[in-house]
Amino acid sequence: MLKVDHIIKADYLLTMEGDLSIINDGAVAVSGTDIAAAGAFSDISKKYSSSNVTDGTEKVIFPGFVNTHTHAAMVYFRGIADDLPLQEWLEKHIWPNEMKWLSAEFVGDAVELACLEMLKGGVTTFNDMYFYENIAGEKLTSIGMRAVLGSGIIDFPWKDYSQGPDDYFRKAEEHIRNWKGNELVTTAVAPHATFTCSPENYTRARELAEKYGVRLHTHLAETEFEVAQCRQRFGKTPVEHLDSIGFLSERVSAAHCVWLTDNDIDILAKKKVGVAHCIESNLKLASGFAPVPKLLKAGITVGLGTDGAASNNDLNILGELSTAAKVHKAVSSDPTVVNSKTALLMATKAGAEIIGLGEITGSIKPGKRADLVIASLNRPHLLPIYDIYSHIAYSMRPSDIETVMVNGKILIDKGELMTANEEAILEKAKRWQKKIQSS
Amino acid sequence: MLKVDHIIKADYLLTMEGDLSIINDGAVAVSGTDIAAAGAFSDISKKYSSSNVTDGTEKVIFPGFVNTHTHAAMVYFRGIADDLPLQEWLEKHIWPNEMKWLSAEFVGDAVELACLEMLKGGVTTFNDMYFYENIAGEKLTSIGMRAVLGSGIIDFPWKDYSQGPDDYFRKAEEHIRNWKGNELVTTAVAPHATFTCSPENYTRARELAEKYGVRLHTHLAETEFEVAQCRQRFGKTPVEHLDSIGFLSERVSAAHCVWLTDNDIDILAKKKVGVAHCIESNLKLASGFAPVPKLLKAGITVGLGTDGAASNNDLNILGELSTAAKVHKAVSSDPTVVNSKTALLMATKAGAEIIGLGEITGSIKPGKRADLVIASLNRPHLLPIYDIYSHIAYSMRPSDIETVMVNGKILIDKGELMTANEEAILEKAKRWQKKIQSS
Repeated sequence: MLKVDHIIKADYLLTMEGDLSIINDGAVAVSGTDIAAAGAFSDISKKYSSSNVTDGTEKVIFPGFVNTHTHAAMVYFRGIADDLPLQEWLEKHIWPNEMKWLSAEFVGDAVELACLEMLKGGVTTFNDMYFYENIAGEKLTSIGMRAVLGSGIIDFPWKDYSQGPDDYFRKAEEHIRNWKGNELVTTAVAPHATFTCSPENYTRARELAEKYGVRLHTHLAETEFEVAQCRQRFGKTPVEHLDSIGFLSERVSAAHCVWLTDNDIDILAKKKVGVAHCIESNLKLASGFAPVPKLLKAGITVGLGTDGAASNNDLNILGELSTAAKVHKAVSSDPTVVNSKTALLMATKAGAEIIGLGEITGSIKPGKRADLVIASLNRPHLLPIYDIYSHIAYSMRPSDIETVMVNGKILIDKGELMTANEEAILEKAKRWQKKIQSS
Repeated sequence: MLKVDHIIKADYLLTMEGDLSIINDGAVAVSGTDIAAAGAFSDISKKYSSSNVTDGTEKVIFPGFVNTHTHAAMVYFRGIADDLPLQEWLEKHIWPNEMKWLSAEFVGDAVELACLEMLKGGVTTFNDMYFYENIAGEKLTSIGMRAVLGSGIIDFPWKDYSQGPDDYFRKAEEHIRNWKGNELVTTAVAPHATFTCSPENYTRARELAEKYGVRLHTHLAETEFEVAQCRQRFGKTPVEHLDSIGFLSERVSAAHCVWLTDNDIDILAKKKVGVAHCIESNLKLASGFAPVPKLLKAGITVGLGTDGAASNNDLNILGELSTAAKVHKAVSSDPTVVNSKTALLMATKAGAEIIGLGEITGSIKPGKRADLVIASLNRPHLLPIYDIYSHIAYSMRPSDIETVMVNGKILIDKGELMTANEEAILEKAKRWQKKIQSS
């Protein structure tokens, strides 16, 4: 018998590996940070023992969700401006507020709230793009969450980045070096978008990422306006443009990808670019419908992202999963597309793959880190149960999530955060709200 | 000072009356079944006193949600078949299961689960269309919920309705008489749809409804198939067809209304038909996008409905509200349509109006019944707060709802049902699941 740190049982275990078959009366053995084994409890209990055996009656275990595109610190701008035309929203509300409030202190406090919200909703890993990512890393590692932190790059000087690109690249390089070897934080270089980053800065970003073997993260083909502007400036679609300068590769996570030609889809498939599908943000900002069934058919790996909370307005991957599973059926007049298994794959395994963590997280597989969610099924809105995948895609809510483990450590227990003071995080948010409102 | 039964306070009070302005530090005085007064606590406390004064720090009060189209008992088929072509879903799964299982016992047990789910999600009133509505009424009045119960009418004999139309109409008339004068249940006659009800049965339904002054409830223009079939049979769209036989009036709640011509919209507006918009069902079954911004512009009153849980898969009006507020923005390429106030109006006041309960419920107004929701705002996903309407539309979840009052009585307190045994309702659902699965 091998002693392990935890044996977690559940009526249903979804590993999101292989043929996605459901393991009834399943269990996961966790040793240190890693998954030692996963399978039927009757098998696991023959090989492993633990002083921590968790009962799983009327529960389901699945891999932690991966939020493949967000700007976590923007939670502090949640609902600050809604139902507005995009340019008015950006120019009169989001940018002036960022200009006024952004600082290391703001980002640090806000990221704690974002981590709290995401963990309670079963998100164990997120792919961030913002500024002051160093303080974000400090806060999230202290809580114990996993993330890829992308240092933003834009063409113009801004706030503490008064030298423009040189400052962004210097801070991005410091950030990469600082987190090298950390077990929870990996890093990325994050040129913002084709309308805010020159070809030179895209290339410089790619070279920096290649030098250190880190990820690239960018917005791509989000709005019709962006595509029109790119065509005007470069005579190419954003995808063609970034391809023509050699930016696109397996290293790139591309957020949104709403406005794509068939040729764009071919390019993304050929270059193995991962797509972060942010359906609720795309709906709420009226950006449009990303052609997800087409992307999947082309063999492109698609994950789910919440985008920032100023445009969504939450960091709820269960909500994205449910919306994605439903909306694409109506868009394509086909109720069989983005089925519940596909949606859960996008929210977990595929998500991990498109942010470079496919070997680490996203599924329940021996040798991967133990990033797990345990949800209760004993709920009025989850009964009866005929199909557990369907329930996760169409009926489950964040409040059903009871336990969340990241890197072998229980961070959420009975729905409460174990590694930081929840009330203190909420109080900080209220203090910032007062400051921002009274200004 | 007038003595009242309850004074309920909250940081924010949304009456959904007048200009929809937010009442800060508000309160509602409840006397018996009715709202005695609503306004600033400083005013209410000058005129009213109560031995039940509820604190409302970090809470919001708004009217109970109205679910304007559902088949409540179908909760027992939740997730039994998903991601399938519509005809396969209906013919191979839903109809055979209904054929096999439907009975007064099934409907009674299932309706309890539906009421539990809806109440916990802040739904205080629903507009039902199904069979065995008498037992549904017994169960829901015992729990204390409000509903319009529509007795289904179809052309063909089925189950206990072995004589076909004559049986449906006989039971519908008994049902209307049985509930006459009840303070929680009102009734409707519910001819199913143009493809299952002859013009003669639509007319007979209208005459029966007019005889007793009750509502009419029907499916209308849900799918492209339905419209094509109606054109073929009658040379008219479903709306034109029902109008030509004199069926359409203010008495009618029409569910779905996805496939409408501009002429159809004119007819619905002129005849003051209320539309029950069931966005999540329409998405999941790939029915399409109802032209809600156009309907609103035409002056049509639009409420929200969940449809049955076999096609949704929950009875969550907060989810419908959020999805409706987001999806129509992308469909119309305009982020200003279906704004958060409009969405909440659809979920409350407009919903009550289109099911004939506009004088009774749907807003917080002296003289209306006290059908209220109190939700907590002290949540990670609801902080900071800049706009309370935005938070309800885009960030609030059923688990934020703490207290639900119907007809002056608290049915949900601290999230728990007070008028029936919740665990017993869940256990019944599990027993039915086992029966259905093992067959």
